[in-house]
Amino acid sequence: MEVSWEQSVTDSINTIYLLFSAYLVFVMQLGFAMLCAGSVRAKNAMNIMLTNVVDAVVGSISYYLFGFAFAFGVGSNSSNPFIGTTFFALKDIPNTSYDYSYFLYQWAFAIAVAGITSGSIAERTQFSAYLVFSFFLTGFVYPVVAHWVWSSTGWLSPSSSHLLFGSGAIDFAGSGVVHLVGGIAGFWGSVIEGPRVGRFDAFGKPVPMRGHNATLVVLGTFLLWFGWFGFNPGSFDKILVPYPNTNDQGNWTAIGRTAVTTTLAGSTAGIVTLFGRRLLVGHWDALDVCNGVLGGFVAITSGCAVVEPWAAIVCGFFSAWILIGLNILALKLHFDDPLEATQLHGGCGAWGLIFTGLFAKEEFVIQAYESGELGVVRPYGLVLGGGWGLIGSQVVEVLVIVFWVSVTMGPLFYALHKLNILRISRHEEVAGLDISSHGGYAYVAHPEENHPHFYADYMRLQAQDQM
Amino acid sequence: MEVSWEQSVTDSINTIYLLFSAYLVFVMQLGFAMLCAGSVRAKNAMNIMLTNVVDAVVGSISYYLFGFAFAFGVGSNSSNPFIGTTFFALKDIPNTSYDYSYFLYQWAFAIAVAGITSGSIAERTQFSAYLVFSFFLTGFVYPVVAHWVWSSTGWLSPSSSHLLFGSGAIDFAGSGVVHLVGGIAGFWGSVIEGPRVGRFDAFGKPVPMRGHNATLVVLGTFLLWFGWFGFNPGSFDKILVPYPNTNDQGNWTAIGRTAVTTTLAGSTAGIVTLFGRRLLVGHWDALDVCNGVLGGFVAITSGCAVVEPWAAIVCGFFSAWILIGLNILALKLHFDDPLEATQLHGGCGAWGLIFTGLFAKEEFVIQAYESGELGVVRPYGLVLGGGWGLIGSQVVEVLVIVFWVSVTMGPLFYALHKLNILRISRHEEVAGLDISSHGGYAYVAHPEENHPHFYADYMRLQAQDQM
Amino acid sequence: MEVSWEQSVTDSINTIYLLFSAYLVFVMQLGFAMLCAGSVRAKNAMNIMLTNVVDAVVGSISYYLFGFAFAFGVGSNSSNPFIGTTFFALKDIPNTSYDYSYFLYQWAFAIAVAGITSGSIAERTQFSAYLVFSFFLTGFVYPVVAHWVWSSTGWLSPSSSHLLFGSGAIDFAGSGVVHLVGGIAGFWGSVIEGPRVGRFDAFGKPVPMRGHNATLVVLGTFLLWFGWFGFNPGSFDKILVPYPNTNDQGNWTAIGRTAVTTTLAGSTAGIVTLFGRRLLVGHWDALDVCNGVLGGFVAITSGCAVVEPWAAIVCGFFSAWILIGLNILALKLHFDDPLEATQLHGGCGAWGLIFTGLFAKEEFVIQAYESGELGVVRPYGLVLGGGWGLIGSQVVEVLVIVFWVSVTMGPLFYALHKLNILRISRHEEVAGLDISSHGGYAYVAHPEENHPHFYADYMRLQAQDQM
Repeated sequence: MEVSWEQSVTDSINTIYLLFSAYLVFVMQLGFAMLCAGSVRAKNAMNIMLTNVVDAVVGSISYYLFGFAFAFGVGSNSSNPFIGTTFFALKDIPNTSYDYSYFLYQWAFAIAVAGITSGSIAERTQFSAYLVFSFFLTGFVYPVVAHWVWSSTGWLSPSSSHLLFGSGAIDFAGSGVVHLVGGIAGFWGSVIEGPRVGRFDAFGKPVPMRGHNATLVVLGTFLLWFGWFGFNPGSFDKILVPYPNTNDQGNWTAIGRTAVTTTLAGSTAGIVTLFGRRLLVGHWDALDVCNGVLGGFVAITSGCAVVEPWAAIVCGFFSAWILIGLNILALKLHFDDPLEATQLHGGCGAWGLIFTGLFAKEEFVIQAYESGELGVVRPYGLVLGGGWGLIGSQVVEVLVIVFWVSVTMGPLFYALHKLNILRISRHEEVAGLDISSHGGYAYVAHPEENHPHFYADYMRLQAQDQM
Repeated sequence: MEVSWEQSVTDSINTIYLLFSAYLVFVMQLGFAMLCAGSVRAKNAMNIMLTNVVDAVVGSISYYLFGFAFAFGVGSNSSNPFIGTTFFALKDIPNTSYDYSYFLYQWAFAIAVAGITSGSIAERTQFSAYLVFSFFLTGFVYPVVAHWVWSSTGWLSPSSSHLLFGSGAIDFAGSGVVHLVGGIAGFWGSVIEGPRVGRFDAFGKPVPMRGHNATLVVLGTFLLWFGWFGFNPGSFDKILVPYPNTNDQGNWTAIGRTAVTTTLAGSTAGIVTLFGRRLLVGHWDALDVCNGVLGGFVAITSGCAVVEPWAAIVCGFFSAWILIGLNILALKLHFDDPLEATQLHGGCGAWGLIFTGLFAKEEFVIQAYESGELGVVRPYGLVLGGGWGLIGSQVVEVLVIVFWVSVTMGPLFYALHKLNILRISRHEEVAGLDISSHGGYAYVAHPEENHPHFYADYMRLQAQDQM
Repeated sequence: MEVSWEQSVTDSINTIYLLFSAYLVFVMQLGFAMLCAGSVRAKNAMNIMLTNVVDAVVGSISYYLFGFAFAFGVGSNSSNPFIGTTFFALKDIPNTSYDYSYFLYQWAFAIAVAGITSGSIAERTQFSAYLVFSFFLTGFVYPVVAHWVWSSTGWLSPSSSHLLFGSGAIDFAGSGVVHLVGGIAGFWGSVIEGPRVGRFDAFGKPVPMRGHNATLVVLGTFLLWFGWFGFNPGSFDKILVPYPNTNDQGNWTAIGRTAVTTTLAGSTAGIVTLFGRRLLVGHWDALDVCNGVLGGFVAITSGCAVVEPWAAIVCGFFSAWILIGLNILALKLHFDDPLEATQLHGGCGAWGLIFTGLFAKEEFVIQAYESGELGVVRPYGLVLGGGWGLIGSQVVEVLVIVFWVSVTMGPLFYALHKLNILRISRHEEVAGLDISSHGGYAYVAHPEENHPHFYADYMRLQAQDQM
């Protein structure tokens, strides 16, 4: 029997939407690579770009073999609230729940997590240690959290049949599942490794260690912005979902609104950082604005689909100050995270979850999680009078992610540290990872090109030729 | 009552089309940032990239609050031909005319305008002045023009109920509304600021001031090309619009044709510039080819939807010579626009409007503006026998944009100039904006990395370790 | 008569899919430009980027005028198996077979071919020779091969009415048609030009000639990966094609699977190269991993739509070793291809064709080439028991492409060589192409910026101002 025309149209439309969203999310991997490369010193650029490439290639295989299964492996007779147990190596895919496009979309998310953490431990980590931690994080720690929050049987999921506090946590595109997980993993890596050589002087005063290329930072930031249009609006998975009430229309409207809230939160955070840093440091700081924008995106990622545009501006406003505050705190505590990943993805990620618990709008929660069904009652934002069910679940998600990532990644980093395979030696660090581990620098100046006689020689030789 | 399945399918398809087109247009912001950065000296790279980021973040908020309202705020009892008066802060959006996706698409256009102008005033403008001008241009000057030409009640609009000269101006994706506006604003900024220090020597001879990084120029050019596929074909807004005549099919065919005309115009202009500059300057100039390609795109932007592919080649051919000619003229007049934005966006933008008045094809005009309705008669290209209605409207659009932008942006720049807050001081300019306003250069060389003993030291230390 | 609603929906969906896929393929041109620029010495960066821009702009016009006609010009009374004979300059387009979107998609493929070859002859080729070869390759040599394999009347085509060996060659997205063609053309160019000056020392030992910027290589690699999602899954052309058997669904599922096989092949090849090179050269080589990933993509391009995900891993595994092996062989033979294009696109492209002949799955072949029709029997992969028809056709495609490109491009390069217009002079090569042919270097250091007193002067002047 042929699949019906209506079903073909629906599947085609939804597949186009999900696949191109996945491609955009994939671009974030490039965005991270450029952002990270520009933010470190030139002598470590090759290293950090390789870690981003490796996140993608190793993550592809591990997510194919078991990561996707751990996260979404919910079969007809498998309903584990803690971890998925089927679909290893795409066995039984496609099925009525998941097509290949869904796997690809989730794959693009999975490879982003280790990229976040790579920033925290930049410029001082042995590459083999990176391989171990990246594999463990992408293949196990992250998929388990994704299962809790995003699968239909997860204990924190807002779509399961046993909703925590009658609500479940709303982490629509993953302020917690992706960013807080990456940020907390980075926190432990960075704490256990300690600051980079020379980051704090003999008196404990921070010594600026600027990245080598601001152009790459801006390139990375814009590419991440571009990719976030796949990350947040794309998390609806399906666009052709009409709501029962004509005025609300359907997912296509909610998707457009999600793109708008995402844009407004990031933009607000960027503006606030621009003026905030102007007040604090006295100049207009382009790099801080970039990080501010990203912090706003991280924060809105949880609630993007369920808040009004004006609330997104509130979200962005506070995320800027949270980032600024945590950066000041980090300096005070001699905490050295070269990409501010802990502060940005961890701090703004946690804020995003709380924000959603405060400002989620009832109508939009029902759109996003009940396809707008009429007559359904669900907890929503505390500030809007939606009760304690949602904010309670959000707090639980924050706490449980901090706990889970700490008890898994903390011991892993500590073991690597104790085995002396986590951090590179002091003089390797001074020389830079690129020359000590990767066969050479990212940039090669060819000496003859800088020679003052170079052009003159060329002109003279050419003149001789023409005689 | 649930929205009908047919309506859901239509809305989903059109939303996918418009949102992904919007994302592509957004990439142009990155394209501008890279093009601009590469075209200025290294000491001002941070500054110009920050202006591009600021265009996006400030533009998001101002366009949300009132820009969109000024441009498209046409309510049931509001039909102002000069300026929109409703939908401030997205109030009453979504409605039957506009969904969020339409706002997002228009937002991506709005933030592009200031980016164009930023090129003209690069390397010498105070950042606080930039904030003022960018806010005013994106939030008021540009939206008003967009209202005239693109809204259903605009006095120049080809879709209003009172068509100017029975035609209205055809500026499909904005050679005039976007590029001419940005170019004229840049003209006044650049004239009032005057040339960069050292651009012309004591005898008035131009001194080459090459940008610091051609790779960024090429990167920016290709990203702009990529984004133009959202800019031009995307301006149909809806793809699922069948025409009454089967042979003509529907918007999907016109959209593909628009992508083709865009490609052919840019390519032709690139080739003509390549050979033209080879004749004029004696070498194959990669950077001029990039600008040539962009000039072709700017010119075809007005008529892309209503001309035949062969006409697009004509369009590109002349836009190359217009750009080459205006650049020669600019040098003669000691006019210093670091990105050639006046010549490129202004000159080729104006040409694009005229070109459309000459070569628009009747059938395609009716497709683009009447959904191909049968029996409708509209003016079309003069060369093709379509009378004076269209070309007249096009000339009016050119004149009125030049006038409007001159009487708004001219005085603004002049006031900033008189208040002494427009241009940086001479020695700040020599030092560069990055160090004087933004806390440091875009590129940081870490001195130890260039030390000849650097690698040797590392090898010696490593050898000691192994003993 | 209006086109039916069903037809409008179908055409809109398929056009969205094909156009956005075309845009992604176009990004590969940028990817090539960045990859190539980063892989050559700084003094030739401008040159190689210009060649990539020129491939696009010249290719647009030549493909419009006759390239598309040679490839797909199959009219009602024209069934030439060797070359197309209609649709010159888009005459009679659109028609019931081809809309503009199809032309645009094929255009994006065509401009990629010369980009591949540009890598092989980098750093030593006269620009005017480049113009000739690029025009000939994009406008004639490549379209003819595309006609054989991809048009409905091609003698090698798997969709014609006279299937070679009852099968036809399966080269779904062009491991052979695009990559092998580009690689073999590059082989002849590189052999006839000979190695770069200084590439092998007096004793024949290779001297490393590293590219000047690894960041650009990583940028280019990720952009190519992004674009490959348009290249491979996009080659289905239509997404709304249901299969007769409900379980198989339709093209949307096969398209998702194709994105997955593409990802897995590239990732596997990247991992194998990472560890393989670690064993061979002793460090973790980021640049080789990038090339490894690309080699995996090239290889899977032929069979992406017709193999299982696990088979894609097999494909990637071997393509990595083929690339590593051919690179060792090239050094031994003193063959100097600066971008390894011959080894990568030629070697892995040929392997991809053979791989498809071994591992194509019957069900998927019928999905991709018979819209899943029931009861059809076709040859499939030899390893899976599908007989000799397919693998035989694949071997024929490899041989005939090597032959055709050799007898066309070989003599062309040889003639240019004999006329002394192929290679630049020795001292032009030492000086670099940028200064000898393109008016200056890609990177301009403004001397004052490096002066030690620069910042001090600025501070002093500013202090004076404030007095």
